[in-house]
Amino acid sequence: MVPHLVTALSGPLQDLEKRFLDKTTEIERWFRMAWNDNTPPFYSSVDVRNSGFKLAPVDTNLFPGGFNNLAPEMMPLAIQAALSAIERICPEARSMVLVPERHTRNTFYLTNVARLAAILKQTGLDIRLGSVSEDITEPTRFDLPDGQSLLIEPLQRKGNRVGVDGMEPCAVLLNNDLSAGVPPVLQGLNGQIVVPPVHAGWATRRKSTHFQCYNHVVDSFAEMLEIDPWLINPYFTQRGQLNFHERVGEESLAEAVNEILAKTRIKYAEYGIAEQPYVVVKADAGTYGMGIMTVKDAAEVVGLNRKQRNKMSVVKEGLEVSDVLIQEGVHTFENIDEAVAEPVVYMIDKYVVGGFYRVHTGRGRDENLNAPGMHFVPLAFESPCNTPDCADRPDAAVNRFYAYGVIGRLAALAASQEIEATIPTELIA
Amino acid sequence: MVPHLVTALSGPLQDLEKRFLDKTTEIERWFRMAWNDNTPPFYSSVDVRNSGFKLAPVDTNLFPGGFNNLAPEMMPLAIQAALSAIERICPEARSMVLVPERHTRNTFYLTNVARLAAILKQTGLDIRLGSVSEDITEPTRFDLPDGQSLLIEPLQRKGNRVGVDGMEPCAVLLNNDLSAGVPPVLQGLNGQIVVPPVHAGWATRRKSTHFQCYNHVVDSFAEMLEIDPWLINPYFTQRGQLNFHERVGEESLAEAVNEILAKTRIKYAEYGIAEQPYVVVKADAGTYGMGIMTVKDAAEVVGLNRKQRNKMSVVKEGLEVSDVLIQEGVHTFENIDEAVAEPVVYMIDKYVVGGFYRVHTGRGRDENLNAPGMHFVPLAFESPCNTPDCADRPDAAVNRFYAYGVIGRLAALAASQEIEATIPTELIA
Repeated sequence: MVPHLVTALSGPLQDLEKRFLDKTTEIERWFRMAWNDNTPPFYSSVDVRNSGFKLAPVDTNLFPGGFNNLAPEMMPLAIQAALSAIERICPEARSMVLVPERHTRNTFYLTNVARLAAILKQTGLDIRLGSVSEDITEPTRFDLPDGQSLLIEPLQRKGNRVGVDGMEPCAVLLNNDLSAGVPPVLQGLNGQIVVPPVHAGWATRRKSTHFQCYNHVVDSFAEMLEIDPWLINPYFTQRGQLNFHERVGEESLAEAVNEILAKTRIKYAEYGIAEQPYVVVKADAGTYGMGIMTVKDAAEVVGLNRKQRNKMSVVKEGLEVSDVLIQEGVHTFENIDEAVAEPVVYMIDKYVVGGFYRVHTGRGRDENLNAPGMHFVPLAFESPCNTPDCADRPDAAVNRFYAYGVIGRLAALAASQEIEATIPTELIA
Repeated sequence: MVPHLVTALSGPLQDLEKRFLDKTTEIERWFRMAWNDNTPPFYSSVDVRNSGFKLAPVDTNLFPGGFNNLAPEMMPLAIQAALSAIERICPEARSMVLVPERHTRNTFYLTNVARLAAILKQTGLDIRLGSVSEDITEPTRFDLPDGQSLLIEPLQRKGNRVGVDGMEPCAVLLNNDLSAGVPPVLQGLNGQIVVPPVHAGWATRRKSTHFQCYNHVVDSFAEMLEIDPWLINPYFTQRGQLNFHERVGEESLAEAVNEILAKTRIKYAEYGIAEQPYVVVKADAGTYGMGIMTVKDAAEVVGLNRKQRNKMSVVKEGLEVSDVLIQEGVHTFENIDEAVAEPVVYMIDKYVVGGFYRVHTGRGRDENLNAPGMHFVPLAFESPCNTPDCADRPDAAVNRFYAYGVIGRLAALAASQEIEATIPTELIA
């Protein structure tokens, strides 16, 4: 049993959810056609925010952790979807090496790896774990809280291919977002399928490119559905060549914040929304909720104190932040027992396979819920995302999850176009 | 909640199920490769029998009714699988006409049609129901016990295509097994996808061809798994040009019965099975459990009385039986509260999407459970068929369902080869 979610609804969202529900057949057809023309990411997870008047993705992860947070009932869907994904990349594959993140001390993360490996095994693959961590110099066993254990081996280079001792797999699945750059062992591979491609890692990926692609996707979707695209798309802009330490680019950043706040205010007025607009400034490259700032006034980004500048200037693996995304903030109005909850939608191939809520009691509804040290409580979606019930209320759990699944898939579609558009030129023959 | 099943286990089956469990990765890879080379039937259901020492399909239905008997929790899997099926036949399809059976008074059957339509709608298709029944001369609404209603319209011919008033669909899905032959409205269609193809209907389909294909499939599977194919394959032979009314062919039939009984006895001796072998004589063309006889001694088929001869001589739609399949009987040792239970596995495309038990208190374990007038109680599988748990016992529900799903998929693979092998020569250009 999964507890029910108490959602405070306050506006035009019910109209939007009702429209999704009335038009499920058209929506599903639109996605079917769209996936005909676009190769789905192998897997993805999308942070969705539900403000009661707006439903939008705020982050799309192409190396999702957290599969262990999905309800066990979603395993069959995940297995079925994984089979599609495998058939797409390498239908005759016998084996696969999964490359996890370096941080092997996080048992939550390792439990995610175990879950992923279990899903993939059920598609008929021998799965082994090959690490790029310097700490893994020999096969090392890690015990998990549920009594399972994982054997992580060093990833080995053999000519233009990689593997682990005794296995040279058909395909390599990255569950490592390459924030620290592409390690030498993964550079210049040939004759082996690597998914997601290394250029989808944070060494080269940019959030702004993703949301540019999302703009295109949403414009087409909103036209089909005859809705205002803003209802599912946050405004954004970008700024580069900043240096937070040196206070270079503050004015330009303030101007960008103003621009997004002004556009948002107009929309709030149009829809009669009384909330205060805000923007989120994020590192354009990077993840893990580092290098993120919530701003309600442009003046806030001018003259940051040392602590704030330090916070903004580095992301995971200590990388310097010079490019930022300035994105319209989407309030989180979902809560459980007063705690703020943010849904995360999980996809494998083009299929939504489940999701969960990040539930956190100590944070406001306009704050980032995926911050370092933030110990959220995962609350698995209690029902799947592909079975809307038109006979039920638009905000019934099964219908709300359907809406989240639609938003998640739009973001995954954007990611598909993003990956395609950013293939390094040397790989285009 | 679904009640647990009490299964009386008595022999080498646990070894078989354990082997399935130990080799799931190999089994899944084998299926993945097999489906690379074979086009899955759009959908299928397989009657499986579990004798405690043998697990085998006894009937494969290419026009499955009974989707309403699956657990509602299986809907997401069914939708995901249906999307694969649609993408395979007509990825850009906007609409589909579903052709139901003629008997519109059976509300159980109509509930199946409603469930099927709901699954297909969720793949982004406009679904309408076009009947070949003479009773449907105008759009007619049928109320269902659950409060829903179905609109059934007359199927209309337009040149070389069919449709319903105002819809000329990309694809036509038959849920009518064509026992009475291919109706004129469905003959010689062109430029429209019809699934399953009309030659898969009982007007032309033969059980013996299916089980010949099953032999091939099982031989390959058993070799991979290093098991005796007999453990999952009933012996069979066939006889033609019988006339039960005129008592033509009795000797030949008795000889065939003897042959199958003798072969079965040898296997029973090999495995130390104390049960009495029996064979099932079935019409080679036909379904609905008509024209079926259980025989423990060849003498039983010589000198049948009038009632028995009448029973054997016609199947659904009053067709005469001249060809029969003589198949090794597989005892049903599964029961719930003393009632005999027979599992039925449902597939869409190559995916197992669920199943249910036919539970019947009034019949023996060597009798046919799908007989006319037999009001079985459907008991939905309580868990899916694609999530075996190696840490659990081989006879745990989830593992038993996995084994049923393996057998179901082997039969579906046989059906795929059967459909391919029986394409009418005039259609092979």
